[in-house]
Amino acid sequence: MNGPLRIGIAGLGTVGAGVVKLLAQHRNLLGLRGGRALDLVAASARSRAKKRDIDLAGVRWEKDPLALAKAADIDVVVELIGGSDGIAKRLAETALRSGKHLVTANKALLAMHGTELAELAEQRGLILSFEAAVAGGIPIIKALREGLVGNRVRRLYGILNGTCNYILTTMRETGRDFGAVLAEAQAAGYAEADPSFDVDGIDAAHKLAVLTGAAFGAKVNFPGVHVEGIRRVTSMDIGFAEELGLRIKLLGLARETRYGIEQRVHPCMVSLDAPIAHIEGVFNAVVVEGDFVGNTMFQGRGAGQGPTASAVVADLVDVARGRHMPAFVVPAAKLADKKVSPMDRHQGAYYIRLMVQDRPGVIAAVSGALARERISLESMLQRGRSQSDQVPVVLTTHETEEAAMRRALARIAKLKVVAEEPCVIRIEAF
Amino acid sequence: MNGPLRIGIAGLGTVGAGVVKLLAQHRNLLGLRGGRALDLVAASARSRAKKRDIDLAGVRWEKDPLALAKAADIDVVVELIGGSDGIAKRLAETALRSGKHLVTANKALLAMHGTELAELAEQRGLILSFEAAVAGGIPIIKALREGLVGNRVRRLYGILNGTCNYILTTMRETGRDFGAVLAEAQAAGYAEADPSFDVDGIDAAHKLAVLTGAAFGAKVNFPGVHVEGIRRVTSMDIGFAEELGLRIKLLGLARETRYGIEQRVHPCMVSLDAPIAHIEGVFNAVVVEGDFVGNTMFQGRGAGQGPTASAVVADLVDVARGRHMPAFVVPAAKLADKKVSPMDRHQGAYYIRLMVQDRPGVIAAVSGALARERISLESMLQRGRSQSDQVPVVLTTHETEEAAMRRALARIAKLKVVAEEPCVIRIEAF
Repeated sequence: MNGPLRIGIAGLGTVGAGVVKLLAQHRNLLGLRGGRALDLVAASARSRAKKRDIDLAGVRWEKDPLALAKAADIDVVVELIGGSDGIAKRLAETALRSGKHLVTANKALLAMHGTELAELAEQRGLILSFEAAVAGGIPIIKALREGLVGNRVRRLYGILNGTCNYILTTMRETGRDFGAVLAEAQAAGYAEADPSFDVDGIDAAHKLAVLTGAAFGAKVNFPGVHVEGIRRVTSMDIGFAEELGLRIKLLGLARETRYGIEQRVHPCMVSLDAPIAHIEGVFNAVVVEGDFVGNTMFQGRGAGQGPTASAVVADLVDVARGRHMPAFVVPAAKLADKKVSPMDRHQGAYYIRLMVQDRPGVIAAVSGALARERISLESMLQRGRSQSDQVPVVLTTHETEEAAMRRALARIAKLKVVAEEPCVIRIEAF
Repeated sequence: MNGPLRIGIAGLGTVGAGVVKLLAQHRNLLGLRGGRALDLVAASARSRAKKRDIDLAGVRWEKDPLALAKAADIDVVVELIGGSDGIAKRLAETALRSGKHLVTANKALLAMHGTELAELAEQRGLILSFEAAVAGGIPIIKALREGLVGNRVRRLYGILNGTCNYILTTMRETGRDFGAVLAEAQAAGYAEADPSFDVDGIDAAHKLAVLTGAAFGAKVNFPGVHVEGIRRVTSMDIGFAEELGLRIKLLGLARETRYGIEQRVHPCMVSLDAPIAHIEGVFNAVVVEGDFVGNTMFQGRGAGQGPTASAVVADLVDVARGRHMPAFVVPAAKLADKKVSPMDRHQGAYYIRLMVQDRPGVIAAVSGALARERISLESMLQRGRSQSDQVPVVLTTHETEEAAMRRALARIAKLKVVAEEPCVIRIEAF
C-alpha cells in the first residue's frame, strides 16, 4: 500500500472542482495523513472546454466517464455526476464490477440503488463510501457506521436541505411569504431555477433514506419515505409557531415503531428548547439518539464546494488507508428488509390553523369534531375581531394517532364556518 | 480476521462496567457490525469482591492488570484505570510492547505521554485509540483523524468538562454563587469530593492537549496549555455577561498563531449568537473550524457510563475491523514539535469588572490607564448609586494584546479608588 492511491474523477461541477482543488492544495498533508500520495490520474466531464479555476495539467482526460471505471491505472472512482440513473448508475456499477472502489456524493443514486451497490461492492471486497451525499461536510455517515456503531439507534432526525432551511429562516426573519423568499433565494444562488427537488422535500428524502440505511442496518427504502415539502408553509403559521414557543423546520425523521421503520420528511414544529430549532440558514444538523450514547448532534454546512470536497476527500483517505466498512453498517447480505410503518399509525401532536367565520359556535363545532376522535387540545389561540369576516384560529393537540387526526380534519373541513382547507403541521417532541 | 476479537479490560468502575454491559447487550449487533465477535476474555480491577451489576461469568479474572498485557489469548487491552502514571502507564506500555492494540479512556495518560505511546504503537503496527478520552460519546477524535482529515484546522474549541458547564449553567439559572452550586453538584454526584481536577480546568486541559495533537498533527503538549479554572467566576459577572448578550463558558481553545500553537483553558464570554453558548448542563460540544469544511460542531453527553462505553466500543469495532489510523492524524515520527504561542501575545477582547468607590473621576482614571496602553473601549456599564460605597463598573474592550492588558490592569489595581482585584474574563469572537 505504499504506492499512490490513483483516483479517477467523473464530474467537474462545483463539487468536482472542489475535490481537485483540495487534492492539490493539501497534497503533502494528505500524503502524510493517508499514508500514501493521493494522485488524481484522470478526469471526465461533459465539457472539456468549460472554464474552471482548477489545474488539470498532468491529469488524463477521458471523454467517456466509463473509461475511468475500466482503466487499469485507477484504484478508485469518484462519481460526482449526479442523478439516480443513467450515466451515474452505469459508472458506479461498472467501477465496482471492474474492481474499483467507489466514492460518490450522489444521494439520488444511493436512495434508489444503494442496497444493490452495497452488495456489488461487498461481493468484490471493495469500499463504497458516500460521506458527501448527506449533510455536506458533516461526517455523519462515518458517525453512524463507525463512531456510534456500538448503539442501537432509537431515532434519528435532521435538517437535511439547506435551501429549505434558508427559506424558512428568511421567511421568519423578514415576515415575507414563501414565493417572495424563494425568488430571492433563486436570485442569490441558494435555490435552483427548478426548485421542486429541494422545496418539495425530495432531496431531503433521498438523504434520509441513506441515513436510515446506515443507522438501522436496513435496506435503503426511498419509496418508504413519507414526503411533504414547504410550499404550503405561510408566514402566518411561522408567526403563530413563535407565539407558541415553536419553530418550523423541514425535518427528515426516522425511527423504528412496532409496525416497522417510519421515515418522514415534512415541515415540523419543534420547541425552541431543542438545539435543532436554532440551526438556521444554509446549515444542516443531524441528531442521533442512541441507546448508550444518548443524544448527539452534528452540525455544519450542508452544501457548497469546500464542505462537500472535505467529505469526498475523507472517503478517499479511508480508501488510501484500506479501511473497510460495510456501506450501511452491517454486511449488505444482512441488511434488514423492514416494513414501512404506515403514516396512519404515526403518533404525535399537531398544530392546526383554521380560517373561520367570526361568529359564535365556531370553536364548539371544531372542538367537537376533535373530541369525537378523542383528540384532546393542548392550547388554543384565537385572534380578536377582524375587519374581514375571516379570522385565524390556532389549535394544538396532545399526542394522537394520525388516522384519527385525518378523520377529524375531514369533518372540520366540511364545517360551513371553516373558510379554507385547514393548515396542519406536526409537532415533534424531542 | 474471522476469529473473535479477544478483549482484556482493566478497570471496572463506571466506564468499565458500561463497556461490559454494552458488549453483552449488543453482542449480536457488534458481531455483525464488527465483522467478527467481540469477546471479553479477561478482566482486572482493584477489588474482585466489589458489587457491580455486570455478569462476568466466563471472563477470566486477572489479579494483576499487567497479566492482560502479556496474555497470549488477548488481542486488545482496554485501559480504564485512569491516572497519568503508575499502573495505567505501565499497562499501556506493556500492552503495546507485547503486541496488543490499546484502547484507553485515559486523558491524563495521553496528555502526559500521548506522543510516546503513539510512537510505541506505530513501531509495532498497532492501533492506539482513545475516543472515550475526550467528550464522552461524541466521536470527535474520529472526526479529527478521519472525517475532517482533508482540512487544515484553523481553530478548535469546546466545552470539555461537564462538571464546570453544569456549575456555570446552574449559577446562571439560580443566581447562586460558585461555592453553593459546587456543594450541590457534589451532593448530586456531578462533582467529585475533591473537585480541583475539574473546577481548576486541569481535566479540560488534558482533553484539549489530546484534541490539539489530533487536530494539528502535533506532539501532545499538556504543559503548553494555559489553564485557569472557574472558581473566581461570580454570579455578578454572569449577570453582567447576560446584560451584554454574552454567556460565560469554560472553554478549551487551540489555534495556530504566527508564534506557534496557542492552547488555552479558561472562562470565556461568548456571544449568545454562537451555538456553543447554548450548550448547557453536563453536555459537551466541540467546534472544529477547517479550511474547507468551515465550522462544524459536535455535541452530546461528555461523560457517564453509556456515552463513554459507546466510545470505547466504537474503538473496539475499529480494531476488530483492522482499521488503522495514526493516533494523532499523522505518523508519530512526523508529529510536529510546535512552539507554544505565549499568552502575552494572545490577541482578544476583554471584559473587566471593577469594584470602585462611588466618586467623581473614577472612570477617567480607569479609562486613562487603558488608553495609555492604547486599549480602546467597546462598552461600559455603570451601576447607579449604591448603599455601600463600592459599586461595580464593567468595561469591555476591543481586541488588544494580552501583555498590554496585563500592564493596564496592574496600573488599575493600584488606583486608590479600586477596591479589590479586577475581575477579567476574555471575550471570544466566533
